[in-house]
Amino acid sequence: MPKQDKLTILRNSTEHVLTMAMENLYGKKVIKAMGPSTADGFYFDFDSPKDFKISEADFSKIEKEMHRLISLDLPITAKLVSPAKTKAMFKNNPYKQEWVKEILDRGDKKIRIVTISKPDSDNYFPDICKDEHLKSTGKIKAFKLLSVAGAYWRGSEKNQMLTRIYGTAFFNKKDLDQHLWQLEEAKKRDHKKLGPQLDLFVINKDIGKGLPLLTPKGTIIKNQILEYERQLEKQYGFQEVTTPHIAKNDLYKKTGHWQHYRDTMYAPFGIDNETYVLKPMNCPHHYMIYASQKRSYKDLPLRLSEPGVCYRYEKSGELAGLIRVRALTIDDSHILMTEDQIESEFTLCIKLVKKMFQALGLKDYWVRLSLNDPDNNVKYIADPKNWQKAGQKLENIIKQNQLKHETIQGEASFYGPKIDFIVKDSIGREWQMSTLQLDLFMAKRLGLVYTDKTGKAKHPAILHRGLTGSLERTLGLLIEHYAGAFPVWLSPVQAVIIPISKANLNYAKKVHQKLKENNIRVETDDTNATLGAKIRQATTQKIPYILVVGDKEEKSQSVAKRDRTGKDPQSIKLKSFIKEITQEIEVKAIN
Amino acid sequence: MPKQDKLTILRNSTEHVLTMAMENLYGKKVIKAMGPSTADGFYFDFDSPKDFKISEADFSKIEKEMHRLISLDLPITAKLVSPAKTKAMFKNNPYKQEWVKEILDRGDKKIRIVTISKPDSDNYFPDICKDEHLKSTGKIKAFKLLSVAGAYWRGSEKNQMLTRIYGTAFFNKKDLDQHLWQLEEAKKRDHKKLGPQLDLFVINKDIGKGLPLLTPKGTIIKNQILEYERQLEKQYGFQEVTTPHIAKNDLYKKTGHWQHYRDTMYAPFGIDNETYVLKPMNCPHHYMIYASQKRSYKDLPLRLSEPGVCYRYEKSGELAGLIRVRALTIDDSHILMTEDQIESEFTLCIKLVKKMFQALGLKDYWVRLSLNDPDNNVKYIADPKNWQKAGQKLENIIKQNQLKHETIQGEASFYGPKIDFIVKDSIGREWQMSTLQLDLFMAKRLGLVYTDKTGKAKHPAILHRGLTGSLERTLGLLIEHYAGAFPVWLSPVQAVIIPISKANLNYAKKVHQKLKENNIRVETDDTNATLGAKIRQATTQKIPYILVVGDKEEKSQSVAKRDRTGKDPQSIKLKSFIKEITQEIEVKAIN
Repeated sequence: MPKQDKLTILRNSTEHVLTMAMENLYGKKVIKAMGPSTADGFYFDFDSPKDFKISEADFSKIEKEMHRLISLDLPITAKLVSPAKTKAMFKNNPYKQEWVKEILDRGDKKIRIVTISKPDSDNYFPDICKDEHLKSTGKIKAFKLLSVAGAYWRGSEKNQMLTRIYGTAFFNKKDLDQHLWQLEEAKKRDHKKLGPQLDLFVINKDIGKGLPLLTPKGTIIKNQILEYERQLEKQYGFQEVTTPHIAKNDLYKKTGHWQHYRDTMYAPFGIDNETYVLKPMNCPHHYMIYASQKRSYKDLPLRLSEPGVCYRYEKSGELAGLIRVRALTIDDSHILMTEDQIESEFTLCIKLVKKMFQALGLKDYWVRLSLNDPDNNVKYIADPKNWQKAGQKLENIIKQNQLKHETIQGEASFYGPKIDFIVKDSIGREWQMSTLQLDLFMAKRLGLVYTDKTGKAKHPAILHRGLTGSLERTLGLLIEHYAGAFPVWLSPVQAVIIPISKANLNYAKKVHQKLKENNIRVETDDTNATLGAKIRQATTQKIPYILVVGDKEEKSQSVAKRDRTGKDPQSIKLKSFIKEITQEIEVKAIN
Repeated sequence: MPKQDKLTILRNSTEHVLTMAMENLYGKKVIKAMGPSTADGFYFDFDSPKDFKISEADFSKIEKEMHRLISLDLPITAKLVSPAKTKAMFKNNPYKQEWVKEILDRGDKKIRIVTISKPDSDNYFPDICKDEHLKSTGKIKAFKLLSVAGAYWRGSEKNQMLTRIYGTAFFNKKDLDQHLWQLEEAKKRDHKKLGPQLDLFVINKDIGKGLPLLTPKGTIIKNQILEYERQLEKQYGFQEVTTPHIAKNDLYKKTGHWQHYRDTMYAPFGIDNETYVLKPMNCPHHYMIYASQKRSYKDLPLRLSEPGVCYRYEKSGELAGLIRVRALTIDDSHILMTEDQIESEFTLCIKLVKKMFQALGLKDYWVRLSLNDPDNNVKYIADPKNWQKAGQKLENIIKQNQLKHETIQGEASFYGPKIDFIVKDSIGREWQMSTLQLDLFMAKRLGLVYTDKTGKAKHPAILHRGLTGSLERTLGLLIEHYAGAFPVWLSPVQAVIIPISKANLNYAKKVHQKLKENNIRVETDDTNATLGAKIRQATTQKIPYILVVGDKEEKSQSVAKRDRTGKDPQSIKLKSFIKEITQEIEVKAIN
């Protein structure tokens, strides 16, 4: 078991206290199913009779009982128990019986039971749990229950619907308060609400879950990002390729995806007597382009790139707007290189990632170095020597590039260790974005070669690069980071013109035309609404510039410019405005 | 049965003569399977014992027997025969037995037998055939057998491999000779050979059949075309959207694709307890974006566009390079509009198509108006009034736009009539490209509405537009049209610099840098090959400009420019060359 961080341990423990409090309060009405910690807190899923409902109104009562259990400072202990004893312990609980069965199926002989108890009393609460815990309940200093929702048992629609209570815990009240503020802020900028409100994307039940459609405005943002990425890639010597979204399933058996990555892949389907599958990654397609020509050391590094749409299975319960989807556009690249080129190619990609973050206005980030779990041969290709070598290379690269970092075991890709970029957004939440992965296995496995200086065939090393990672996720992040008020270069509409009266419509049209000629995305609001209503509408739509034009502006060939912050309007010559906004777009200013 | 054109009738008849000649020559060794006419001629598929092989060496003998049958001027007649009698007639032929079964399954009571015979002799050759024929064999004036190949029975790998003889026929020798010249020319410019040779695309057996991968060079051409299309679309008020490549199968039941278009769709696959399928068209996805907002007449026309990759089943035997694929990028648009806007929107799209053809250097084209077959309710939505109305609208539009055209029945889309653009390439072959389709059914079927001026809900009319039709097909056409020598704006490498000696490498680098700064796609050949070999290599790669630089050029800041036609080199100042080529790219000159 990889070591868990302190917050995770705290939250695991708080979840046990919640479950115990629920049992104390409601007895057999609460049939506990499961309850893990999450990145932000924890949750607890339980089944209950039809007439028993928990709502947020019950939280103060439950929290009171939790506080009581914490104040008793009950010890938390773990021990291994025989399956028979465990089954008896939870004999009326079908969920726990299923856990036991699964643990036994995995080949474990004993089951780990974590118990909250007071040695000198009958107070006693055991549960099946593999996680680490605090030594006693008294160590829990700050927690809060947050919401109630429905959730399917193990995330699958085919199963029983359970009740889920979400909560969180921190080591002190200040951190908890900061998190609660974040949650409030996050609600206001929730991309699942803002996205459709700003007409950026749609999820349609007839198309399917986790399959967002980008509207014209959403597509403008995606294309702006892509266009800038293409510009950077051209500058840095990447070459774009185009590949289909399916491939024969056999290919994924060759690469090992089928063995190591199958849970994330879609069901295969037949074409004639062959079996095909939607691609979960772009790599094998890019390798086939590499393999289509004889390659020499002079051709390396070969930097193939593609904004490739991949299809990955996610449980329906885990889908979330643009953040967790089933179709994702990876701004992908695969660099095939000699071993000597590993450091310089990673450094080049780090530069590229930094440039992208800068353009997107993401200033705060750190990296996570993810290594393999040497004991897990299901998840990882078995080749300890190469894992160690690859891991060390990445450590050096992180040091050389002076990146703030953490190291974690058991989170690598199946073919190699990786550097993931974790971005902090404007309200302090963390998002996993760009990824740079080193792969010393696949070329050998697939027989990809180049001829070295001495004429010998060698296997290239491979760098897998997701520049922002996923364009859908990036769009989701940007909506929340900016609460919809995008930098001008990304704004679907960059300026709206509002004529004061019908008499000014001609001048408005002229201004519109001038802006369009200068490649500014512009709209004119010539509806019958009042001036105030029009300004409110444009502000709600977070349009960067509102240009009101009346007789005065027409006479002086100017516009009354407002920005979306609600500051007083400012009169500016049309020519100067065009110069100003063009400059702002050009440098990708973040305002 | 829709009326067949004269060439089709001629070729059907010639194929019967070929089959008869084969029977006369080889008797029972030839078990005839099938033999249709094609766009370019005809073919004949037959089964035979293992030790019996036909090769092109046998053609003169077969052609001689065909000439003999033609000189006899045997009458060709058709009559309806009972199934029992037909079965007896072909009692040792399993292929013909299968045809009979299929005809009966379709519900036909009688079978059409076409017979070549001389009333006053025993010369007699009957075959099952639904097609029209010439009155007698003597009407065949010019034909030729072309090649032998293997072909699966009914195009499916699951079936028996047969022998196929290809041939063609014309009404006079001049037309035949022109066609034979075309075939010779076509071989030289075959995109299936030139494509990999110029490193433009790859078809890889591990990825799958009919799924081309575009290499960096192929992607440059695709992106150049797309970029220009985007520029035109922006100018003409189209709005790009982004949609996934799959959707729930139920959606296609709602739209009618499942009922009318199923043969072309891929096998569905499961996600959780839902059934999904690869999209064969982009329309339903675009409709869902339309449906995501309330629309008023003020929002129309709404021109949604997307270079959307669709997946269509084609029999493996019919796949051909980039021309007939299973994954195609349709430069698609759906315009939702009021009925009043139909004419002006079609005219706008015709303008757009003309602009694209001009940029691609396709000067010779005509249009085919495809109407429905009123008797075929399987292929077409049943709604005679709307079919007539839509057909008439398109006829008017063709007249208004003065397009050279032909009208054909039974080739419409299942949802409406269409105007297809047929392009003649540089050697006179015809390619079906752009398509503009009118759809008065689907909005009603899916409940798509807008509010008209009086506040009433109405269904919009829909224009389906494929700008070039398919980017893969367009790339295939362009390779063959230009024999790989693309116009400069499309050329993956626009200029190659060849230093005469190592001493000139620095100047070569400077020239390279200058060209790159001016957005010219440039390469420098600094290998150890001889000057002559380098020039030959660049010419083979059809690079528009070869710039040789030596001491003389360095001194005068110029380049010795050659084009790929092999003309003498011309000395030109570097600055002037940059100006010249930039201008050529800008205006998309065809040279």
